[in-house]
Amino acid sequence: MQVTILGNASGGPFHGRPYSAQLVQLDNQVFMIDCGEGTQMQIFKHRMKADACRQIFISHLHGDHIFGLLGMLTNWGHKKRSEPLQLFSPPGLQEFIETSLRICGVRLSYALEFVEVDASVSACVFENPKLEVWTIPLRHRCPTSGWLFREKTRPRTIRPEKIEEYQIPYDLIPGIKAGQDLVLPHGAIIPNAELTLDPPAPKAYAYCSDTAFHEPVIEVVKGVDLLYHEATFTNGHLAEAEISMHSTAAQAAEIAKRAGVGRLLLGHFSGRYTDTDLHLAEARLIFENADIAEEGQVFVG
Amino acid sequence: MQVTILGNASGGPFHGRPYSAQLVQLDNQVFMIDCGEGTQMQIFKHRMKADACRQIFISHLHGDHIFGLLGMLTNWGHKKRSEPLQLFSPPGLQEFIETSLRICGVRLSYALEFVEVDASVSACVFENPKLEVWTIPLRHRCPTSGWLFREKTRPRTIRPEKIEEYQIPYDLIPGIKAGQDLVLPHGAIIPNAELTLDPPAPKAYAYCSDTAFHEPVIEVVKGVDLLYHEATFTNGHLAEAEISMHSTAAQAAEIAKRAGVGRLLLGHFSGRYTDTDLHLAEARLIFENADIAEEGQVFVG
Repeated sequence: MQVTILGNASGGPFHGRPYSAQLVQLDNQVFMIDCGEGTQMQIFKHRMKADACRQIFISHLHGDHIFGLLGMLTNWGHKKRSEPLQLFSPPGLQEFIETSLRICGVRLSYALEFVEVDASVSACVFENPKLEVWTIPLRHRCPTSGWLFREKTRPRTIRPEKIEEYQIPYDLIPGIKAGQDLVLPHGAIIPNAELTLDPPAPKAYAYCSDTAFHEPVIEVVKGVDLLYHEATFTNGHLAEAEISMHSTAAQAAEIAKRAGVGRLLLGHFSGRYTDTDLHLAEARLIFENADIAEEGQVFVG
Repeated sequence: MQVTILGNASGGPFHGRPYSAQLVQLDNQVFMIDCGEGTQMQIFKHRMKADACRQIFISHLHGDHIFGLLGMLTNWGHKKRSEPLQLFSPPGLQEFIETSLRICGVRLSYALEFVEVDASVSACVFENPKLEVWTIPLRHRCPTSGWLFREKTRPRTIRPEKIEEYQIPYDLIPGIKAGQDLVLPHGAIIPNAELTLDPPAPKAYAYCSDTAFHEPVIEVVKGVDLLYHEATFTNGHLAEAEISMHSTAAQAAEIAKRAGVGRLLLGHFSGRYTDTDLHLAEARLIFENADIAEEGQVFVG
């Protein structure tokens, strides 16, 4: 699972920071999280391939997380995209998109499916053979959901030399990968453990933006490999964080520590900060394995 | 009158070209023309000051000309702007803006005034002591208006040494600047021509995007100092230009030549062209004083 940061700004595109958007890639699947203004350009700039994206997960309906959708969807239409696109979000996105496209005379070449999620509970809202995506209830000024990408356990890896050694027929391989033993023609049983290796441990990535410090998040993101948590402010602006229902870097680190995650990424920085050194220092005092979600960086879960 | 190009792309932000947007400055006044996605970022990038903008002129309601408005308007709200903003456009913009801002929970700190224009006639739709702005009927797939910025004749410039020589009282100066002669206390008359210099010739700038080749444009933009005319295609794609109701560089040059303008700027290039050399060459064969409306360039009318 690979996470690419396309932007990390909140409020405005200050100090050259683009608006929030991320790509999550798992094998040949691409998922988008949030889509602030300019996301299209960020995809070009970082030479990402996002056309294969079939699902976009929108955390909430504030402009800095959705104003890039209109251009993105329109351009996929210009390219004569035919694959349908699912848009997961709290309620309201459909009216925003459909009204805008109607007024602009856009008729898309592909189908949109709007999936409204209940941002007040953690539930699995998307599943395919390789992963599940869960909502993460957040606490913000409007219904807001984080997104938890949880890879499923992959099949066991068959050892190639064993196929040779036991002349394993092709049609038995899926069963062996699923954990079955091998019964040889003369009746002897070769235990699965001899034939296969453990698959890599399934990874999990959690995206939490925008939110005030919210204890229930801890339980939902417990033990994930990678946690992105917004850190709009530093503790010097704690009062402002509370009023605007955002977090400080220290609060993000507190969530990471108590959830026992592998690594913490900080993002969604207020334009008042020309750099993010203080955010990083503040977070690392509480949770050592913290980093800035820098635009263009790729994190592997 | 100064025109700054913030973007020159059509369709998509290909080859690093930003979407259409321009700033027109006259003394301390700032006007915006079109506002494609990313216009905010372009303003930052080129260190422009656009906060003083009180009027935005939108040519038509296609996404590549308006999707940057939502972020622009929202951020002026974040900055606690209080000055009202007028938005001139063909019908439909109000619903786009108001629906989007409502869904995103944005309450602006300043008033928006939507001025719907009739894109089928050339009429003066905005006037202040320094300039007039006129609609230019264009021919596109939806109601589309170009914009003609016509500076008014400035007052005559009084010669400082004459104020001294004739001890001209302060309260007579506005009249002299307006062309009056000076009557001295003993009755002698000093003709205005001796007291003043001609003001600089008033300048005019015309913006024509998006449009198929449209002869009536010639009359409206006749003799302007600077003409921006879209040149989405080159003549090699004439058929495509006709179908999509865009122009070729040669057609833009034909308009410029027959209108006798001072200088032609070409823009709104299709993503199929990795560079614009051919556009320029094609236009210059017909109209020598042609240039590419390069992002970031400033043209003085």
